[in-house]
Amino acid sequence: MTENLSPSASRVSVIEKLLTANEEVAADNRTQFKAHGVKVVNIMASPGAGKTTLLLATIEALAEAGPRVGVIEGDVASQVDADKIATTGVPVVQINTGGGCHLDAPMIRHGMQALPLEDLDVIFVENVGNLICPVAFDLGQDFNVGLLSTPEGHDKPYKYPAIFEAVDLVIVTKSDLLPYLDFEVDTFRELVHGLNPNAPVLVVSAKTGEGMEAWVGWVRERMAR
Amino acid sequence: MTENLSPSASRVSVIEKLLTANEEVAADNRTQFKAHGVKVVNIMASPGAGKTTLLLATIEALAEAGPRVGVIEGDVASQVDADKIATTGVPVVQINTGGGCHLDAPMIRHGMQALPLEDLDVIFVENVGNLICPVAFDLGQDFNVGLLSTPEGHDKPYKYPAIFEAVDLVIVTKSDLLPYLDFEVDTFRELVHGLNPNAPVLVVSAKTGEGMEAWVGWVRERMAR
Repeated sequence: MTENLSPSASRVSVIEKLLTANEEVAADNRTQFKAHGVKVVNIMASPGAGKTTLLLATIEALAEAGPRVGVIEGDVASQVDADKIATTGVPVVQINTGGGCHLDAPMIRHGMQALPLEDLDVIFVENVGNLICPVAFDLGQDFNVGLLSTPEGHDKPYKYPAIFEAVDLVIVTKSDLLPYLDFEVDTFRELVHGLNPNAPVLVVSAKTGEGMEAWVGWVRERMAR
Repeated sequence: MTENLSPSASRVSVIEKLLTANEEVAADNRTQFKAHGVKVVNIMASPGAGKTTLLLATIEALAEAGPRVGVIEGDVASQVDADKIATTGVPVVQINTGGGCHLDAPMIRHGMQALPLEDLDVIFVENVGNLICPVAFDLGQDFNVGLLSTPEGHDKPYKYPAIFEAVDLVIVTKSDLLPYLDFEVDTFRELVHGLNPNAPVLVVSAKTGEGMEAWVGWVRERMAR
């Protein structure tokens, strides 16, 4: 017996008010980032999908020739991730949401004030580990990147369609684990393109370096726009 | 440069109202489950942590000697998971939250009406894949089980403390991948017990069967309470 039930829509008006207030601040963030010539890349993924590890490898890859990187780390609690990023020497600010399941534009407004915008070309925002909530909240970013790690399974676009519809680029992380999993890259790519025909899907391992050149090339190409 | 910022608390009153309404329905759910002699186990984890795969192995393990199982599947979209469970022949209902990041008590109230409660001993609720939001919403369950898959990393209790504080049991899933990862089981266990000294931590692979006996034993022992 399988039955499909729909939720009630009782919270919609509350959520719409929150979103409108958020969008006003996001628009202001966008203006400020543009005034400083900084591009902002919002990185979204599940917990443990490899966001911080990818960022560490990205910072290393960009260190010599640029662009110059800053990072805003979003987490429910702790500054574990910001501490890891800080070891590279790039400017980083940790935002703790205190239970909140996503970053929002006011948090980014506070975060950017702690970064030397005039010395940066790109800010990577590592959103809270969550495949659902971050999608609905504009931060003032230029680009959205969605990560899915191979152990999560290739069926996730069925179950979390909104994130795959919203992103400019999809990165399959932890490709080094593919030999031990039944993750089908081609099936995943087809599911993503069914939702979002224009989003490239890169297959990357921050551990082995596979795909890093393509990802770094994507970043550099976007800086030039 | 690392700076720690706190969020504003502007949405607290809205959230408190939602939670109070939810708790009333959850209490009623609990009464109804008890009247039918059904125990309810709420399973929470990240997307792709192996909730459905563990459930399939659990249903198989319980098939002969019981307890008799029903399943409520929660997902943002699709009925991929309910279709998988339905192949086992156990009663299953799929709830789609339509964007919502967690199940709530009214959804469970609807879901239980589609299940033959009189023929069941235990209902496993597979919550929406999310390590944050499901924790705050009582469903009327008897037990909470948190899964963390080895590829997610042993540091997750730092970053998502609430779920590890809330659960009666923690299961480390995908133990078959341990040889290919730097997941430290002992460190993870220490972090969990720092937050929740009484929660057992089981190490399980639904693929190889490791730890399944301990997990099934835990379920049977709880049925007797």
